[in-house]
Amino acid sequence: MIKPQTLKGFRDFLPAAAMARERLLDIARRVYRSYGFSPIDTPALEYSEILLGKGGDESDKQLFRFRDQGDRDVAMRFDLTVPFARFAAQHLNEIGTPFKRYHLATVWRGENTQKGRYREFMQCDFDTIGTESNAADVETLLVIHDLLDAIGIERFTIRVNNRMVLNGLLETLGLTGKTVGVLRALDKLPKIGADAVVAEMTERVETTNEQARQIIALTRLSGAPDEILTTLESHLAGNERGLTGTKNLRELFAVARHVGLPPERIQLDVSIARGLDYYTGTIYETFLNDLPGIGSVCSGGRYDNLAELFTSQRLPGVGASLGLDRLLAALEELGLLPANVSTPAPVFIAQFQAERLGDYQRIARVLRAAGINAEVFPEAKPVGKQLKYADRKGFRIAVIAGETEFANGNWQVKVLATGQQETVSDADLASRIQALLS
Amino acid sequence: MIKPQTLKGFRDFLPAAAMARERLLDIARRVYRSYGFSPIDTPALEYSEILLGKGGDESDKQLFRFRDQGDRDVAMRFDLTVPFARFAAQHLNEIGTPFKRYHLATVWRGENTQKGRYREFMQCDFDTIGTESNAADVETLLVIHDLLDAIGIERFTIRVNNRMVLNGLLETLGLTGKTVGVLRALDKLPKIGADAVVAEMTERVETTNEQARQIIALTRLSGAPDEILTTLESHLAGNERGLTGTKNLRELFAVARHVGLPPERIQLDVSIARGLDYYTGTIYETFLNDLPGIGSVCSGGRYDNLAELFTSQRLPGVGASLGLDRLLAALEELGLLPANVSTPAPVFIAQFQAERLGDYQRIARVLRAAGINAEVFPEAKPVGKQLKYADRKGFRIAVIAGETEFANGNWQVKVLATGQQETVSDADLASRIQALLS
Repeated sequence: MIKPQTLKGFRDFLPAAAMARERLLDIARRVYRSYGFSPIDTPALEYSEILLGKGGDESDKQLFRFRDQGDRDVAMRFDLTVPFARFAAQHLNEIGTPFKRYHLATVWRGENTQKGRYREFMQCDFDTIGTESNAADVETLLVIHDLLDAIGIERFTIRVNNRMVLNGLLETLGLTGKTVGVLRALDKLPKIGADAVVAEMTERVETTNEQARQIIALTRLSGAPDEILTTLESHLAGNERGLTGTKNLRELFAVARHVGLPPERIQLDVSIARGLDYYTGTIYETFLNDLPGIGSVCSGGRYDNLAELFTSQRLPGVGASLGLDRLLAALEELGLLPANVSTPAPVFIAQFQAERLGDYQRIARVLRAAGINAEVFPEAKPVGKQLKYADRKGFRIAVIAGETEFANGNWQVKVLATGQQETVSDADLASRIQALLS
Repeated sequence: MIKPQTLKGFRDFLPAAAMARERLLDIARRVYRSYGFSPIDTPALEYSEILLGKGGDESDKQLFRFRDQGDRDVAMRFDLTVPFARFAAQHLNEIGTPFKRYHLATVWRGENTQKGRYREFMQCDFDTIGTESNAADVETLLVIHDLLDAIGIERFTIRVNNRMVLNGLLETLGLTGKTVGVLRALDKLPKIGADAVVAEMTERVETTNEQARQIIALTRLSGAPDEILTTLESHLAGNERGLTGTKNLRELFAVARHVGLPPERIQLDVSIARGLDYYTGTIYETFLNDLPGIGSVCSGGRYDNLAELFTSQRLPGVGASLGLDRLLAALEELGLLPANVSTPAPVFIAQFQAERLGDYQRIARVLRAAGINAEVFPEAKPVGKQLKYADRKGFRIAVIAGETEFANGNWQVKVLATGQQETVSDADLASRIQALLS
């Protein structure tokens, strides 16, 4: 006999967890589609040369890479951005630009599993490529907002910044050439505090103490976005790139206000740089106010050229990615997942008389036609045992009928949480259950 | 520069194809859930010993198998049944029985790609395990029916049989011990005809000519299920297993009639055996009447023990699997896929004045709140160019506003297929577009 086990870093999804994940995926799909993003899919396996060197040394080491039956050097995708770059270059004539796509799919990384990280997880990306218009950046913000809102999270904050503003400030402070080091240090501000960041900047990046203090002060500006932007603009006077950044941010906040997003959900945070050298314009990070420690659950930004390694055509774009697993963990911690429900059906139909299977399935179909999911128990076991099963799975209502009910054309309807029971006629069953469920 | 290409046997899904597939997955999910099947998921990678030897030599050769970073012998799943067996054995205490699950996921097989077969494809399985009750077999039929019906296929036939009946007939004909050979030959009946099957049986399986003719005559019985069953029962007199099979089939057809399934969609076909030795009771195959040549699009059956290689607990069950890719190809051939639509949004909002982005996004949100997907074009290009984009993507309605419309608080609404255009007030836009779309 073979021991049934999963690989280290891999996991099964049992019904309750799988349903929670399906719900999030469904919402993501619905919100992305509502903005006109189209789905695409790419293979789990790619030629290794497509994936290698795209995420740094660490990423290369983490690749699940092997030789296939045809001795091809292949690897499993470690993210959805690199396959999208390959896809965009390969199908550019068919897809045209601008092109808006979403991609919900599994990726694999042979990571150290110590920190509760998994080697298999899902990403939920959306991107608009082939346009430099700030309208796409603004829309990305709206999508992130609507996504979190649709998931049912009340208190969240999308922090927005623009790399052009950051770079402009660095230029005006005479820190050009030290950008990467300064941004890397700045990224640690919330974790290690201002003094440690100053120390890192002066020691490792060789800024002056004054330069370090100034850039930290500027990136720590807080308050209404328009006020912060006015302060930044006075510092950026004459710096064209920086002023394009503030102009784009002004438009973003103006549209967010105009369409009615709650202002407390959108903040300008000049300190965020998102480590990567990849982003060149707007940057987004999203935090749950009640659980900021888990980090950003939806991040992204604008980049200059998606597919430069695969095509000579320039493909600028902007997008973001929902961290599905992190968000699921957060929802669980916040008590926003239904506990102990492992069935997608609220209604349980007990099987009392085996020879009446046709009637049980008939009434189940009446409920299904009314949009109510209903399960018929497969065996005519004692009803007590069947109700125990129903309780354990989290059904909300049990429907029961024996000889008397069949003779009178009605059903016993039992609300499982309260034990409350009533007799309902066959014709009224769907509407009564709908009322009980709502 | 790296050549952007996919591996042999692998493919990208562009928006139109990805949307068609998402629609089928969504329907499968909805129908499975409506019967109380819960989702589960398992990893793409398993220890190789879990997967090896479960699908025969051919399947072993087709495994994408390699050593991971921890030198573990791992492989990508080639179906969803073997991982489900491992899953059921591993989590039996948590899931309990009966257990109803569905699993929609990707599998990989390094197959010969000549016949338009792919090395990566999706399976959509549903199963009820932990019960021998025929009620689960009956329900499996109902699920298959509702699935095809929900997909929008009018003319399909589910062919049902029961291995106990077939085995019983073989016993009464004195063919016990030759079952596998006879069934394998019978399976070819529709392809090679009766004479060739008789030849194969007499030559390879060493039946008599009379035995071969008799079993073929019995398996070719046609007509109303109850009449066929009566004939079979007279042949099976005294054969308990065979008569259990006919009794189960009687109940299946009785319930199907009772709940109102169109009788022409459900046929008793005593000839189908589904090759595999795996099935032990009811068997299902589903054919599209207008495209029978593509083979069964939804097949399955009852089996005795799902997880015998992983646990000593017996887990009988019944289930079926929707052949997603085959069905997609069929829908395309039957013209049942919307042609040339690569957007999930019916409404296109042109960007006429860049400084009005807030108003374009505001009206888009009004439409989205009314359940209408709407895309705002990201650039204020000439409207003609924008409408060309909208046409190419398959949008149905364009919404346009410039200075005059903003001054008057209204919008130009253009039906793209007809060119018909009208002026609609801001307040009426959602309801007017809803009317135009329906």
